[in-house]
Amino acid sequence: MTKEEFSVTPYEVTGQVDYDKLILQFGVKRIDTASLARLKKHTGDHFMLRRQHFFAHTNLDKVLDALDKKEKVYIYTGRAPSGPIHIGHLFVWTFTKWLQDRLNATLIFQIPDEEKVLFKDDLTFEDSAKWTRENLIDIIALGFDLKKTRFLIDTKHANVMYKLACQVAKKTTASTVRALFGLKNEDNVGKYFYTTMQSVPAFLPTVFEGKQTQCLIPCAVDQDVHFRLTRDVAEKLGYPKPATILSKFVPSLSRDSKMSSSGEQAIWTTDAPKEVERKIRKYAFSGGKDTVEEHRKLGGNPDIDVSFQWLSMLFEPDDHKLASIHDDYKSGKLLSGELKQILIDKINAFLAEHQKRRLDAEKVVDSVIAQHF
Amino acid sequence: MTKEEFSVTPYEVTGQVDYDKLILQFGVKRIDTASLARLKKHTGDHFMLRRQHFFAHTNLDKVLDALDKKEKVYIYTGRAPSGPIHIGHLFVWTFTKWLQDRLNATLIFQIPDEEKVLFKDDLTFEDSAKWTRENLIDIIALGFDLKKTRFLIDTKHANVMYKLACQVAKKTTASTVRALFGLKNEDNVGKYFYTTMQSVPAFLPTVFEGKQTQCLIPCAVDQDVHFRLTRDVAEKLGYPKPATILSKFVPSLSRDSKMSSSGEQAIWTTDAPKEVERKIRKYAFSGGKDTVEEHRKLGGNPDIDVSFQWLSMLFEPDDHKLASIHDDYKSGKLLSGELKQILIDKINAFLAEHQKRRLDAEKVVDSVIAQHF
Repeated sequence: MTKEEFSVTPYEVTGQVDYDKLILQFGVKRIDTASLARLKKHTGDHFMLRRQHFFAHTNLDKVLDALDKKEKVYIYTGRAPSGPIHIGHLFVWTFTKWLQDRLNATLIFQIPDEEKVLFKDDLTFEDSAKWTRENLIDIIALGFDLKKTRFLIDTKHANVMYKLACQVAKKTTASTVRALFGLKNEDNVGKYFYTTMQSVPAFLPTVFEGKQTQCLIPCAVDQDVHFRLTRDVAEKLGYPKPATILSKFVPSLSRDSKMSSSGEQAIWTTDAPKEVERKIRKYAFSGGKDTVEEHRKLGGNPDIDVSFQWLSMLFEPDDHKLASIHDDYKSGKLLSGELKQILIDKINAFLAEHQKRRLDAEKVVDSVIAQHF
Repeated sequence: MTKEEFSVTPYEVTGQVDYDKLILQFGVKRIDTASLARLKKHTGDHFMLRRQHFFAHTNLDKVLDALDKKEKVYIYTGRAPSGPIHIGHLFVWTFTKWLQDRLNATLIFQIPDEEKVLFKDDLTFEDSAKWTRENLIDIIALGFDLKKTRFLIDTKHANVMYKLACQVAKKTTASTVRALFGLKNEDNVGKYFYTTMQSVPAFLPTVFEGKQTQCLIPCAVDQDVHFRLTRDVAEKLGYPKPATILSKFVPSLSRDSKMSSSGEQAIWTTDAPKEVERKIRKYAFSGGKDTVEEHRKLGGNPDIDVSFQWLSMLFEPDDHKLASIHDDYKSGKLLSGELKQILIDKINAFLAEHQKRRLDAEKVVDSVIAQHF
């Protein structure tokens, strides 16, 4: 299969991503069989690992060493609030929650509520505050153990973060952020400074514990650029380098980029069943043939079929069932409409539950926001 | 009198400053007779005003309009902690305290404890925390009304400041800070961001009051560069432009720049009487002649005599006494050693009191630091 041109930055992903190339570009490592076996000793298995949706890492060995020595490991992930939550966002967090549960680890969930305000001309802090609350409802609804999860809202908890961010900033030249993030003279100085705030949660565990404490960051691979900077600076500041465990992108319905937060190309967590059905039927890129006859004869291509990808990445944890769907689709036994229906039913079953949990989350979200860090 | 080459930035002042040229360079205004008269209606007179040690301003008319309308006006000044306090530092703060008392105004006293850490390679946050406490002892000892003075320590109160700083940052390009502060690609990104934190206290009054509230900033003229940026951004953010009232620099003992915080060229607030005497006798640049005979015959030049300048700027508020000293020195009646003795006595009388007040200040400084903003 030939890959088209693609580009991955923390601010845009375009084209069909060639993950093998990306590993080389980003200087990260593929999660190999040995590392995976070591991790599974501590966490058990997860379909996102065995299917290589989490496919790459940096410094995972440091986490495994710490776990082997029964040392405390922190998890750190985040969400920059700028719009509603879609199915694609849930992917990394679902894995993160599982990791937290399996490792019984404290999770720092950063809400960098200034990032998108600085990077998007028309997004205000009022918007960002609205989305912080709204996004937290979804995050809480995923079931993170609130006793072991600390939400770090940048503008609200800057008294905990800003000094550490300045320590990072002191070791970070304008040249470096210009190279890593493509910034120019005409970009605002908030963009120059922002990445230092994203480094901070990786060091907070060490600050909290008063001794070198390992941090593990599950995130989509585009975010590793920030943590490349974090790793460089960690060494200079005498903090341990954080580890990242990196996922592929959940494709958008049209498959032309990672799932976008704009337009019709996303399933929102608040979508009604009919809306989900309409979007999947209308937009989900199909690997099937143009006519039923042709499809029956030649079969479909699950590798490029977005409905199949979503089942594989999010909604069908059972390998046997997934394999049946794969084989039936490939053979032509399963039609595109039928495959879509499987996905629609899965999403709607999930959302029915999730939307109930959102109602509960809504009751606690304001007290979560009011918490001191 | 010809002026030598000089340069004024917030980070360095060199040469003999030509304040007329500086007014043009900086685009600020001389405090004219009309403005001074309007100000005196509200504050009464101060020798630093009538002697034109505070000589320039921006937007002072806005403050005067507000005062005429009996609207609340805030005062804002600051200190970046990076070393001990010398006599030169007290100059602006003495005026600021007087202004606060006369206007019965709330004072925001910013302690940007990150600034010098970001700008000086070898200054750490540990140093900065030490100097924050130490400097606050001097500041409190000056007698600011603690009920009406709010100390804003950047890293500690970043939860109040960072969001506003990001709003400023969003309107401030890297180009702008490169031009204003001479920053390069190899400078750290903290330097790029820092000035936005210095803008914040100018807007806090409006945020606190929930309506457009005028801020007045007494500071040395070199700091106006920061507030030039503040004025530009204020307009874009819908905040009132702050006013500045700008002072000349207290010359160093050797008169080759403003009083420096390094070396022997400063009188520290903790200096013992003998130390003060030694430094003034040894280093204070004299406008006197080389021999007593010559001095008696030709007289000295008070305009270039640092001892006389310090009396004029800080230690002799009585115009008649100052005029006598001036005339006696010029005529040759007063010898350089005698002039120095007048200054030594004045400084030591002041420091005896100040050092007593430091002991009282030391008892409250930790509770001041512990205050929420």
